[in-house]
Amino acid sequence: MLARTSRIENLLQDLGGVPVVTDPQRVRKRSRDFFWYSPVLNEELKDVSGEVLVEATSEAHVIATAAACARHGVPLTVRGGGTGNYGQCVPLEGGVVLDIMGMDKIEWHRADVVRAEPGIRLNKLDDTLRPNGWESRMHPSTKRTASLGGFIAGGSGGVGSVTWGGLVEPGNILAARIVTLEAEPRVIELRADAAQKINRAYGTTGIITALEMPLAPAYPWIDIIVAFDSVEAALKGGQAVAYADGIAKKLVTPIGWPLPSYFTPLKEAAPEGKSLLLCMIAQNSIEPFKDLVRRAGGTITHEKPTAEEPGSIPLYEYCWNHSTLQVLKSDRSYTYLQCLYPADRAIESALKMVDIFGDELMPHFEFIRFGGKMTFSGLPVVRYTTRERLWEIIAIHEDNGIMVANPHVVTLEDGSRHKRANADQFGFKGEVDPLGLLNPGKMRSFLRRSGPF
Amino acid sequence: MLARTSRIENLLQDLGGVPVVTDPQRVRKRSRDFFWYSPVLNEELKDVSGEVLVEATSEAHVIATAAACARHGVPLTVRGGGTGNYGQCVPLEGGVVLDIMGMDKIEWHRADVVRAEPGIRLNKLDDTLRPNGWESRMHPSTKRTASLGGFIAGGSGGVGSVTWGGLVEPGNILAARIVTLEAEPRVIELRADAAQKINRAYGTTGIITALEMPLAPAYPWIDIIVAFDSVEAALKGGQAVAYADGIAKKLVTPIGWPLPSYFTPLKEAAPEGKSLLLCMIAQNSIEPFKDLVRRAGGTITHEKPTAEEPGSIPLYEYCWNHSTLQVLKSDRSYTYLQCLYPADRAIESALKMVDIFGDELMPHFEFIRFGGKMTFSGLPVVRYTTRERLWEIIAIHEDNGIMVANPHVVTLEDGSRHKRANADQFGFKGEVDPLGLLNPGKMRSFLRRSGPF
Ligand SMILES: Cc1cc2nc3c(=O)[nH]c(=O)nc-3n(C[C@H](O)[C@H](O)[C@H](O)COP(=O)(O)OP(=O)(O)OC[C@H]3O[C@@H](n4cnc5c(N)ncnc54)[C@H](O)[C@@H]3O)c2cc1C
Ligand SMILES: Cc1cc2nc3c(=O)[nH]c(=O)nc-3n(C[C@H](O)[C@H](O)[C@H](O)COP(=O)(O)OP(=O)(O)OC[C@H]3O[C@@H](n4cnc5c(N)ncnc54)[C@H](O)[C@@H]3O)c2cc1C
Repeated sequence: MLARTSRIENLLQDLGGVPVVTDPQRVRKRSRDFFWYSPVLNEELKDVSGEVLVEATSEAHVIATAAACARHGVPLTVRGGGTGNYGQCVPLEGGVVLDIMGMDKIEWHRADVVRAEPGIRLNKLDDTLRPNGWESRMHPSTKRTASLGGFIAGGSGGVGSVTWGGLVEPGNILAARIVTLEAEPRVIELRADAAQKINRAYGTTGIITALEMPLAPAYPWIDIIVAFDSVEAALKGGQAVAYADGIAKKLVTPIGWPLPSYFTPLKEAAPEGKSLLLCMIAQNSIEPFKDLVRRAGGTITHEKPTAEEPGSIPLYEYCWNHSTLQVLKSDRSYTYLQCLYPADRAIESALKMVDIFGDELMPHFEFIRFGGKMTFSGLPVVRYTTRERLWEIIAIHEDNGIMVANPHVVTLEDGSRHKRANADQFGFKGEVDPLGLLNPGKMRSFLRRSGPF
Repeated sequence: MLARTSRIENLLQDLGGVPVVTDPQRVRKRSRDFFWYSPVLNEELKDVSGEVLVEATSEAHVIATAAACARHGVPLTVRGGGTGNYGQCVPLEGGVVLDIMGMDKIEWHRADVVRAEPGIRLNKLDDTLRPNGWESRMHPSTKRTASLGGFIAGGSGGVGSVTWGGLVEPGNILAARIVTLEAEPRVIELRADAAQKINRAYGTTGIITALEMPLAPAYPWIDIIVAFDSVEAALKGGQAVAYADGIAKKLVTPIGWPLPSYFTPLKEAAPEGKSLLLCMIAQNSIEPFKDLVRRAGGTITHEKPTAEEPGSIPLYEYCWNHSTLQVLKSDRSYTYLQCLYPADRAIESALKMVDIFGDELMPHFEFIRFGGKMTFSGLPVVRYTTRERLWEIIAIHEDNGIMVANPHVVTLEDGSRHKRANADQFGFKGEVDPLGLLNPGKMRSFLRRSGPF
């Protein structure tokens, strides 16, 4: 601990001109994210903290910090909005927490492409783009608090993935500029396929200082809820919508009763005992959408243009990881899983789990495109008893051909599964972080090289 | 024959104020379409003609004509651009040919929806919309000559269907206004599901006087050609592109050698012996597209922004039914088929046909979404010998699970197959055309009711 402290002292001397915070309370606060979603991770991470907080507002600050960390052998963990929910930005080995939220400028915007700094909040990005007719192709349900860089480095997809697939699909990240962690940091532009090297790498493969993203048309979106008699009917209604390629959509979310009973502000739209389908549909597709869900036996209980300004709750804040949050708000005895059901028997395998687990698990699905096929992922809310039982529930899912990206572990390898980028992130890490100082402990297969310190 | 002539005489007396043409040469010219694509249909239809041509410029003209036809028991066949290729607008029983190309106004345009009269040419429609950032979701390769109404009433999909599916998918036609064929014609608005009643009905279920269509973002599109060593490689490369949901696309067309040898103006881009992949890709997706096709073993031989103005040939005019046309220009001994390959073994079944038929068939495929799945249709160019052999080739395809929409017959029932709308067109016809005078002979299952004439 003393040794580390003197390392930090030396580091600070090198950081003249870079905004730093050393107050332990403030550093600790900025060392945490939503890992408490997982009772397992909560145990493991609740006492972890960085030692210094750097508040970068420019790429020059990032370069200076990276150089200093390399010279002094200090770990560096980047932090965006801090909404990751498996401790992605928790600095397991202490050191520097590099907050990049001050780097929030849009470099340029040309029709359907934008290039921005990583610290821009996703809602601010869209607010800027929408008047020109464009918006982000996809965003996490944390759009109103998360950063662009944190989404690319720590997320996987979300609202919009029913149309565009996840961040792993080629074309969904056009380019990234990164700073390497070396005594003389390099600035590298990664384009097209190469940009996948930083996708969901938890900041272990370079510090992102700019991202170039393809955009989608900014339709006027409508939040709409449809009630069904059973979770099976909601899944089938959802599939009819998801398969209807002529219906422009951003969100198709079947949610099994009793999960909707936790959505207090939506009480009116969530009749007792009914399973729901939560959707965002383009205004131009609302009429055919209604015909379709009615044919599938649904009843529309809510319809309102998506509103994201302060004071409103957009429907997507009941979807993706937010569904779990709605439960955790009132009952911390629950946790969740992240599943991907096989495209060719998605409904069948999902219903089998509903059958097996009964009320130990509240069903929640998200239709997404994956590898060119329409399927759904699932974020079932699980009643937590023991770690052993949780691992057993995962195993039963996997035995049934359902992939589980385990959200109760901190490493990329164990946690990401189907969310994993199709790129040699491991090999690339050796090039850009030869000392293994970037967010150490998250890329399990990469062992820190022992240096001269 | 005399009886008919007197019917027409009476009809003409009722058509005061409506522009009519009776010159037999001009009427005959406007009674034909591209049925000569099929040697079978060419035999059957080459001598057919209407008796009067009406050139409507308003819905009032349409109503007056419909009323007069009902009163005098005269068949009425609507004609748009006349580019149908199975005699859709050929008046099998003579009577009135109702040309609606003079009805070409845009009623209104709001963000992502347009409402227009049926006679507007599809290229004019897009030229008007694109400056506002929107365009038609899909169009036939005849965009520069075909009408909106003719596409909806006679077509099925085309450029854009790789993203949006065909016209049969819910949401791709928002509404249609039609005029019934009755002594006192009614004007009916068909919305959402109900609009499918006029989709690909060849004008047998009402005369369309307005269409409300959902739009797509007007990306800057790039025409791009990739050469592959084999048709199998072109299909697999095409599938990789089609499955990449992050790549915004409008056209993904694998074409097997020697078909490209007929594309004279593309000589430079069509190396001897190579199979091609012809694509339209959004500018924002070109980099990841290139990485993808290179990984699939392709070589880019052509790349140019899509240009549709007179004097240019957009790449889509080598695709869809235009591929066949490129061959027919120099060799009328060929004809074609329209196939749909099963989504789960599309490439396998396509290659089996390539194997079986050798050079009797030049392979041509079009990736499309169908019922929520990515698959491809095919328009193989077939060396024509006899009608019997053609029917045998169709049967062999069908035996292998490939659906064939036979383009060598004039009836909806026999010809449309997978292109058929999901609506009770037959029942609806009884309501809107009780006398069976709309394009008689095209809806086989509907027998004309014998009236008092
Ligand atoms: C309620 C809730 C809902 C959620 N919904 C979704 C969802 O729908 N989809 C989804 O994908 N995720 C979801 N998440 C997870 C998380 O919110 C998202 O991944 C989010 O985009 C993270 O953004 P952030 O700015 O908060 O990143 P942070 O949590 O700050 O960081 C995430 C990771 O990225 C790294 N990082 C951040 N910035 C950089 C940079 N500039 N360079 C290199 N590395 C960097 C961090 O080190 C960390 O490993 C949800 C989480 C919660 C709590
Ligand atoms: C080279 C070539 C390429 C082609 N490519 C495609 C393609 O990619 N996709 C595709 O789907 N088709 C294609 N086709 C077929 C045809 O071009 C299209 O269907 C086209 O859209 C027809 O439009 P049109 O205005 O020429 O209609 P027409 O040929 O004039 O009419 C087509 C049918 O619609 C009816 N009709 C026309 N207007 C009305 C109206 N207002 N009310 C009621 N009925 C009406 C007619 O009676 C007729 O039955 C192609 C044809 C050729 C020759």
